[in-house]
Amino acid sequence: MEAAKANGPKKEQNQRPVIPGPTNPMVTPLLSDFYQFTMAYSYWKAAKHNERAVFDLYFRKNPFGGEYTIFAGLEECIRFIANFKFTAEEIAFIRASLPKTCEDGFYDYLRGIDCSDVEVHAVPEGSVAFPKVPLLIVEGPIAVVQLLETPILNLINYASLVSTNAARHRFVAGKSKLLLEFGLRRAQGPDGGIGASKYSYIGGFDATSNVEAGRLFGIPLRGTHSHAFVSSFMSPDEIVEKSLKSHDGSSTCEDFVSLAQTWLSKIKRSHSLHGIFGETNQSELAAFTSYALAFPNSFLALVDTYDVMRSGIPNFCAVALALNDLGYKAVGIRLDSGDLAYLSCEARKFFRTIEKELRVPDFGKMSITASNDLNEETLDALNKQGHEVDAFGIGTYLVTCYAQAALGCVFKLVEINNQPRIKLSEDVSKVSIPCRKRCFRLYGKEGYPLVDIMTGENEPPPKVSERILCRHPFSESKRAYVVPQRVEELLKCFWPGSTDKAREELPPLKDIRDRCIKQLELMRSDHMRRLNPTPYKVSVSAKLYDFIHFLWLNEAPVGELQ
Amino acid sequence: MEAAKANGPKKEQNQRPVIPGPTNPMVTPLLSDFYQFTMAYSYWKAAKHNERAVFDLYFRKNPFGGEYTIFAGLEECIRFIANFKFTAEEIAFIRASLPKTCEDGFYDYLRGIDCSDVEVHAVPEGSVAFPKVPLLIVEGPIAVVQLLETPILNLINYASLVSTNAARHRFVAGKSKLLLEFGLRRAQGPDGGIGASKYSYIGGFDATSNVEAGRLFGIPLRGTHSHAFVSSFMSPDEIVEKSLKSHDGSSTCEDFVSLAQTWLSKIKRSHSLHGIFGETNQSELAAFTSYALAFPNSFLALVDTYDVMRSGIPNFCAVALALNDLGYKAVGIRLDSGDLAYLSCEARKFFRTIEKELRVPDFGKMSITASNDLNEETLDALNKQGHEVDAFGIGTYLVTCYAQAALGCVFKLVEINNQPRIKLSEDVSKVSIPCRKRCFRLYGKEGYPLVDIMTGENEPPPKVSERILCRHPFSESKRAYVVPQRVEELLKCFWPGSTDKAREELPPLKDIRDRCIKQLELMRSDHMRRLNPTPYKVSVSAKLYDFIHFLWLNEAPVGELQ
Repeated sequence: MEAAKANGPKKEQNQRPVIPGPTNPMVTPLLSDFYQFTMAYSYWKAAKHNERAVFDLYFRKNPFGGEYTIFAGLEECIRFIANFKFTAEEIAFIRASLPKTCEDGFYDYLRGIDCSDVEVHAVPEGSVAFPKVPLLIVEGPIAVVQLLETPILNLINYASLVSTNAARHRFVAGKSKLLLEFGLRRAQGPDGGIGASKYSYIGGFDATSNVEAGRLFGIPLRGTHSHAFVSSFMSPDEIVEKSLKSHDGSSTCEDFVSLAQTWLSKIKRSHSLHGIFGETNQSELAAFTSYALAFPNSFLALVDTYDVMRSGIPNFCAVALALNDLGYKAVGIRLDSGDLAYLSCEARKFFRTIEKELRVPDFGKMSITASNDLNEETLDALNKQGHEVDAFGIGTYLVTCYAQAALGCVFKLVEINNQPRIKLSEDVSKVSIPCRKRCFRLYGKEGYPLVDIMTGENEPPPKVSERILCRHPFSESKRAYVVPQRVEELLKCFWPGSTDKAREELPPLKDIRDRCIKQLELMRSDHMRRLNPTPYKVSVSAKLYDFIHFLWLNEAPVGELQ
Repeated sequence: MEAAKANGPKKEQNQRPVIPGPTNPMVTPLLSDFYQFTMAYSYWKAAKHNERAVFDLYFRKNPFGGEYTIFAGLEECIRFIANFKFTAEEIAFIRASLPKTCEDGFYDYLRGIDCSDVEVHAVPEGSVAFPKVPLLIVEGPIAVVQLLETPILNLINYASLVSTNAARHRFVAGKSKLLLEFGLRRAQGPDGGIGASKYSYIGGFDATSNVEAGRLFGIPLRGTHSHAFVSSFMSPDEIVEKSLKSHDGSSTCEDFVSLAQTWLSKIKRSHSLHGIFGETNQSELAAFTSYALAFPNSFLALVDTYDVMRSGIPNFCAVALALNDLGYKAVGIRLDSGDLAYLSCEARKFFRTIEKELRVPDFGKMSITASNDLNEETLDALNKQGHEVDAFGIGTYLVTCYAQAALGCVFKLVEINNQPRIKLSEDVSKVSIPCRKRCFRLYGKEGYPLVDIMTGENEPPPKVSERILCRHPFSESKRAYVVPQRVEELLKCFWPGSTDKAREELPPLKDIRDRCIKQLELMRSDHMRRLNPTPYKVSVSAKLYDFIHFLWLNEAPVGELQ
């Protein structure tokens, strides 16, 4: 990954290859909740800090009213964990923040800790994931693992949310459209922007406007010009350098400005286009001409600064035709306001008429990009209306996840010193599933995933062609037998700590994106639809079911009737 | 500011004090949209890059259905601008990203630019602001100013949004409550979290859980322990180190665990509390006891891991009473689930009963903190139900601005080479207000702000006691005469560029917060209310009004009827 060289401390971990620090250097062990430190002190004071704890990281509900979630953020977590170490300055700050009564030994302890004794199993990044099934299982000394809680939740919650949002936009837009992430200016802070670019790409977007994300992650960059560019020009008279070499270099047009103006007059005289426009805006014509002179091979113009059909489109076509004379092919237009369905169809008609009338091959296929507060709903509405858009630029609604701005991943203790632990709640959906677990995805005959199942660590795993009972973790009556045609273990070891387990490599971003696209294609379509999707089933083994309910009764206080 | 030492290049700017770089080192000139670079090339190619441009940064609509916005993010913008300079690596990346046909001279140009010729006027950070009135006016060579657009929009949009959200939460909670920002784990990325902490503080929050924000900005830190801490204990038997010195150091309790257990039995035998609980959860009692041993001066317990009234509250009280025996005062409890209004009232009753029955002075005043997906609506509902909560911990809804995840600040060209420019739109609210402007807030007799007015740069400013006509910028019939009792010029020079204007100092965070609180107090209450607030009036001078409409007619293409 390009990001590798960016920053962060590096250290050898059991002779394994060096894992660079998090992309954002602000991701340090202090990027955490204060209570992680008060708890760490309390564990240390009670000599409990090295007790072996197992935590599950999971979410309780899919976002955006859907029935699936894309898991993302793992690479950044592993980079954080691999480099987890307090600096002297950080320890000084913690000392200044905790009560003066805290003993010095605690700070010596903090100085010494890292994640060499922490073990992390995780679902690979870019996987389709479902509620309650752990995305990460983190095992290690309780004080250390708790210090990881806040940063890894922060790194996963938004990453998974925005990947899921991107996947949903891709689903509505369809495979053939180009999807561009344009959200940096409206994102929730600088790396809200950088994260959005990275994780939208994982979720199926094709490119970003964010230059820094391009540099860090190798994501393709896109962008042309703004309204301000257009209105910064007054008239074509101000263009001084007017010459343009032909595409093959064989000749030079000495006055490209006049060439474009000539074409504008020709279009105006065209029988079929007559009456669509009067005088077009001259500052716009100047801007388009100037932009084409700078980028003759990639001329794409924003056509709605003054009036799309009366000014933007004819001005664009005039410049595109002038380029065509010199052997260049214009790329197309961008619409950023108004009725995008209608305008894209009108623009297409205009382009086709020019192709036919003026005999310019392929002019009708000119690319049309649309932007302006697009989201799942507006994409869906555009599809229903019928449109001629080839590419969508999506910003605010994508990157801020406007429809649901947070994913509620939690990090729950499920075992300590080999003792299973449960967190109860009045709200059944908030009760945690105890025990160190293994998780499997069972596939049916048609190749679709049928159900995810969690089992206790030492239970025999589900086997292909062997019937297994899958139980809803909390609802007694919900259960089903499944005969899987394929069994996939969901979590792999991404950080073996002091064990000799093999460490899964962190794949390049492109592979994560491919994994995401492939996994989504494998899903049964009724889980994917926007309206009333069918919930995908998540279950526990019969043995785990019994154990959960035994523990529940054991921990819940018994009331006394009065 | 603490942040000063954190990072970023430093350079002398006309002998003025050095301004450090942005808090987040990822805020570089590449944190920008790709089109800023294609435009910059196009300006440069047309020898237009040094034309003097003026841009207004403003928003069109207040967020959250309200009628005010808090402006924030200025300090980070000025830090960015003061240190704006491309590195060789950055230029190499831009070269690799632009078409190969782009001329080398452009990269030499990029290498040379900085903001020494850019001038920034801005509303002071922490001010109450309204739609259409520029928050920033940025003037300078057009190519440079456009390169600033995306990063400064990114730095201001979320900052202002979350400050406003915090101010709204403060408004509903009331002045007397303690407001704690607990959102890091759900924030949109690492500095979504750090930004949320900083800007919630500006908007009126009192403290944060985010340790790094505490270190960077000096914001007070808060936090105690989690559910996992509670369930990590099995029983009081596991506590090895049981002794606790009395508060004054005069004696030592050798078995604090037994002391707490004795108090639990006493509470259970109390006539008034009889029947409220049976056996409390022993792992919870162990956790509370252990936490109190670590923090005897600041014991605050999370009481809802198993059952608030049947287990959490009696366990807490037992430990608090044991601490009381040794001269310590427990701080209180935190509720994180269930009916917070009801539970806080029940807890308060329990505390008061203990104060009375067991004659423990002030026990009834024990602090009650509430958390669990709180937002404006739930705070309002709690107020209506009646509650006994002293402090609110607010996370997801605050930091992700869940009710409206983006503020739509825009950056529009209003003048180039002293020529006013306008951006038209089918949607009147999207038409930009041309010209370099001055902006004033006019105050009435009662001391309230009455109206903001924008004038052309060279118009005589409004004067105290002199009647002035204030016109709606786009609605012909909306206008009013105002006789201001006080006139405040809104924008000040925060970056003088090559001029000899005095530069406004960047105030410390605490002063920004104070400004915000004071400005909010000055507002008429009908602008502030949650339901159907009265819009605050924003106007232009008669002269500017006429000019806008002259320019509009001039630029809009005239259609031809068919």
